[in-house]
Amino acid sequence: MEEHDLNRAILLVSCPDQRGLVARLSGFIDRHGGNIITADHHVDFNSSQFLTRIEWDLERFDLARDEIAPAFRELAETISAAWSLDFADITQRVAIWVTRQDHCLLDLIWRQQAGDLRAEIPLIVSNHPELESTAYQFNIDYRYFPITAANRAEQEAAQLQVLRDYQIDLVVLAKYMQILGADLVGNLDRRAINIHHSFLPDFPGAAPYQRAFERGVKIIGATAHYVTLELDEGPIIEQDIVRVTHRDNLSDLVRKGKDLEKIVLARAVRDHLEHRVLVYGAKTVVFS
Amino acid sequence: MEEHDLNRAILLVSCPDQRGLVARLSGFIDRHGGNIITADHHVDFNSSQFLTRIEWDLERFDLARDEIAPAFRELAETISAAWSLDFADITQRVAIWVTRQDHCLLDLIWRQQAGDLRAEIPLIVSNHPELESTAYQFNIDYRYFPITAANRAEQEAAQLQVLRDYQIDLVVLAKYMQILGADLVGNLDRRAINIHHSFLPDFPGAAPYQRAFERGVKIIGATAHYVTLELDEGPIIEQDIVRVTHRDNLSDLVRKGKDLEKIVLARAVRDHLEHRVLVYGAKTVVFS
Amino acid sequence: MEEHDLNRAILLVSCPDQRGLVARLSGFIDRHGGNIITADHHVDFNSSQFLTRIEWDLERFDLARDEIAPAFRELAETISAAWSLDFADITQRVAIWVTRQDHCLLDLIWRQQAGDLRAEIPLIVSNHPELESTAYQFNIDYRYFPITAANRAEQEAAQLQVLRDYQIDLVVLAKYMQILGADLVGNLDRRAINIHHSFLPDFPGAAPYQRAFERGVKIIGATAHYVTLELDEGPIIEQDIVRVTHRDNLSDLVRKGKDLEKIVLARAVRDHLEHRVLVYGAKTVVFS
Amino acid sequence: MEEHDLNRAILLVSCPDQRGLVARLSGFIDRHGGNIITADHHVDFNSSQFLTRIEWDLERFDLARDEIAPAFRELAETISAAWSLDFADITQRVAIWVTRQDHCLLDLIWRQQAGDLRAEIPLIVSNHPELESTAYQFNIDYRYFPITAANRAEQEAAQLQVLRDYQIDLVVLAKYMQILGADLVGNLDRRAINIHHSFLPDFPGAAPYQRAFERGVKIIGATAHYVTLELDEGPIIEQDIVRVTHRDNLSDLVRKGKDLEKIVLARAVRDHLEHRVLVYGAKTVVFS
Repeated sequence: MEEHDLNRAILLVSCPDQRGLVARLSGFIDRHGGNIITADHHVDFNSSQFLTRIEWDLERFDLARDEIAPAFRELAETISAAWSLDFADITQRVAIWVTRQDHCLLDLIWRQQAGDLRAEIPLIVSNHPELESTAYQFNIDYRYFPITAANRAEQEAAQLQVLRDYQIDLVVLAKYMQILGADLVGNLDRRAINIHHSFLPDFPGAAPYQRAFERGVKIIGATAHYVTLELDEGPIIEQDIVRVTHRDNLSDLVRKGKDLEKIVLARAVRDHLEHRVLVYGAKTVVFS
Repeated sequence: MEEHDLNRAILLVSCPDQRGLVARLSGFIDRHGGNIITADHHVDFNSSQFLTRIEWDLERFDLARDEIAPAFRELAETISAAWSLDFADITQRVAIWVTRQDHCLLDLIWRQQAGDLRAEIPLIVSNHPELESTAYQFNIDYRYFPITAANRAEQEAAQLQVLRDYQIDLVVLAKYMQILGADLVGNLDRRAINIHHSFLPDFPGAAPYQRAFERGVKIIGATAHYVTLELDEGPIIEQDIVRVTHRDNLSDLVRKGKDLEKIVLARAVRDHLEHRVLVYGAKTVVFS
Repeated sequence: MEEHDLNRAILLVSCPDQRGLVARLSGFIDRHGGNIITADHHVDFNSSQFLTRIEWDLERFDLARDEIAPAFRELAETISAAWSLDFADITQRVAIWVTRQDHCLLDLIWRQQAGDLRAEIPLIVSNHPELESTAYQFNIDYRYFPITAANRAEQEAAQLQVLRDYQIDLVVLAKYMQILGADLVGNLDRRAINIHHSFLPDFPGAAPYQRAFERGVKIIGATAHYVTLELDEGPIIEQDIVRVTHRDNLSDLVRKGKDLEKIVLARAVRDHLEHRVLVYGAKTVVFS
Repeated sequence: MEEHDLNRAILLVSCPDQRGLVARLSGFIDRHGGNIITADHHVDFNSSQFLTRIEWDLERFDLARDEIAPAFRELAETISAAWSLDFADITQRVAIWVTRQDHCLLDLIWRQQAGDLRAEIPLIVSNHPELESTAYQFNIDYRYFPITAANRAEQEAAQLQVLRDYQIDLVVLAKYMQILGADLVGNLDRRAINIHHSFLPDFPGAAPYQRAFERGVKIIGATAHYVTLELDEGPIIEQDIVRVTHRDNLSDLVRKGKDLEKIVLARAVRDHLEHRVLVYGAKTVVFS
């Protein structure tokens, strides 16, 4: 039998390490009749942080969904926890932001349609008009915001409003080739994922594949990370690589890189949607 | 600061899934003053088994080491648990069994000497005399047991006695090319790891690399597993692969395969020594 | 500058190894004014076969395209060569055969649309009606051939006729869950690629992921191979793997397996379309 | 039958691309009775360079070994080639340079002893005394050169002299933690390989694993490259990665990194010893 029943709560908690945390957290769930399905507790000794993800069955839980957070708050404060509570059967609403390249966009749409991502995709945002027909083909709204130095602040305010109008839970920058302003980034804290065409740190400058090719690298990478104000310094969610050889010319590097970007971004989005990613400091724990 | 303090207990538990297991297990540890460092709870829905590994700091634990198991037994029986209790700072004693090939043997010795494996290696067992000088070079006792159809039963009894004399905790069949008898296997249940030169299932017959070469495979694998009576049916601990091409001739396959065997076996042995492997049914959970 | 000029010929040759083969082959090209772009010569010592792929620029070649094969034939006979001649700018016509699963189908269509596969896809063949709407969405003809024990021979004859009508160069069995008869296989020799949900050899029987899950494997594989009469014994073109853990339930294995099948099949199809695959005996050389 | 006969010549050639190169090169070999075993020709369109590795059987070659280079020189000049000629059965002499870490040193010695590297290792050079006993254990000479700002120039001159005395063909910096001066680097052009504990480019500064850990990377890499004056800018020979998770603490990163460094360095050394690496500009072709 598969585990298809998703009437479950998921708690992500980080707090200073101290004795008895697992007992207190699991005791809370047990007292209210919850059955823990998976739980993964970890202590980062460098930062003395306790980090955990707990997923439990709500079938016989004696608190209603909207009573759980209030009931948990007291315990959370006692242990100085940063925490979030989510439910596995809630379908999140995702906005995909693109510029001209469609490989990550299409890959995410297809995975969503195949049922591999528990999400709705009601909205595509772009700073260019080219991909509107793709949006149309999949019956997704397309909002085009041309950005200039002059209009950027107001356009970003408008983008933010659109995200609110569509009740967007997660923004995925799927090759959105435009830096976001501080206001937008601040509003999307831990709710915006970017795909970067390289390891981090990477070759500086504008044409990373060109640089990688000139340097004769034997491997190219990709990195999915949360968006922060310092470009490409956001907490890393997922990375992977693909091997290349001298037989790969520059266009082969670009092609292999695109394939890799799709895979790395899809894994990161999936981990986020399943509430497996806990951010603390400049890094993440991915409870995979 | 690194986590170098190893005054810790490790509990591996499998039992039928039921409500409140995490709370009860962590409650036991908390009541006695233990601080959980890592814990990983998992439910296998196919078998309705709850599986967990809990590691906790003993510094302020109010039970002496030899009091823990007796104190835990009552709880264990209540939840019908199969379980084991170990201590992270106990150095286990490993016997490496070989025939003529030394690549896995040397790799394990070097890792042990480099401090990557918490173990002593006081004994090498072989059905051939060739590797005695290697044992001598590393100051390890070498016991040579030639096996024939006629003497096998008594030789295996003698091998078992040697394992007892040396107080061996773990047997590693590091290319020991001799099938073990039922008595020996029974006595080594979950305490003997074998390295197999392939995925499982694999090409049938005696010369797997030859067969793989003839078939033009693009990948070769290796599998480390616990030894059971049914050959190559033991619970899998670790597997990995390496890519091959037409440029690899048969000796390249053998060379790449040997490198792979070393890595896969070393990972499996390390996981076992750190009490990360929980066997249930025909399979394992590796809490890595 | 990229190498985008595709006015090139590609020669794949296998023959008994003998002195002077490279000189004779390259001499033929040089005498007629061709410039070799890449060439990869290999001797398989097990079979004493010489195997090569030569790609040359036709810009100043003094033979017209239809004169090359006749001119080469004499040399080919002298060296007892099996060979094929192709042109890099010819777009091949691919028929994708499916049953109910669409992941490989969609992936191939998307790669073709993205320009990553030099091919047209004018035809989808199926033994089930479900994917007709997908074909319609991408403006591809869909031919539905229900197969029963009684009608199989005539349906396969009809399928063969459709392949001829559409001038199909390559058949891709993209999760076509129906065994092909001898006549069909014979007519598709080295022109039909299948994707197999496992390494080869694999777990016997009907539910490989189920068996792999029960066995607790740490890795799952996929294999793309040419279709031959002996099921799953065809020459292997590409294989790869993905790691799995106890946290992956059966549906995760299936999901990861599907992703892997897409990638492995796409690579094999691309290698074939670029005339990089040379079959000899039961195996291939992939000049990648 | 295996390809164990090593009476072969290997030619590495790079030159401006032009028509007829393969025919001229293979013609030279054929005219003198050589049988080409493998040949791999490649054109880099970015630099318009033709690059090739040709390996042929000398059994019936009508030139003596010392006559080949003089005979080839005329052709080489006509095509403006940079080239090298080597013989597969010549065992090269390797000096391994170390500081305090022994993992790469031991790995290379073991591979050499196992017959996986065709090389002698008569000499270990170090700027520290610690590893002398290891050298002694394997019967290898150990030369200790303490380096200070004051004595560096003369010590490097002495090192160079030692390399000459021992007739060293290849220097392997196997965790030699000391920057080489210009004179030394100039004398070791394309004959010194370094292992770098990261991708390139990497985290700046002194403690890369620490920085990688703080950044929460999901992958760590290693790079083997030829030594050039600009630190870590030398032509890359081989790179690879290993996955890490939050469960890996800093010492796990270091341990995994060491394992990776061994593998990457060993592959690069092997490729070099088999004359598979052709350096051109800032990059390499590895004919693997």
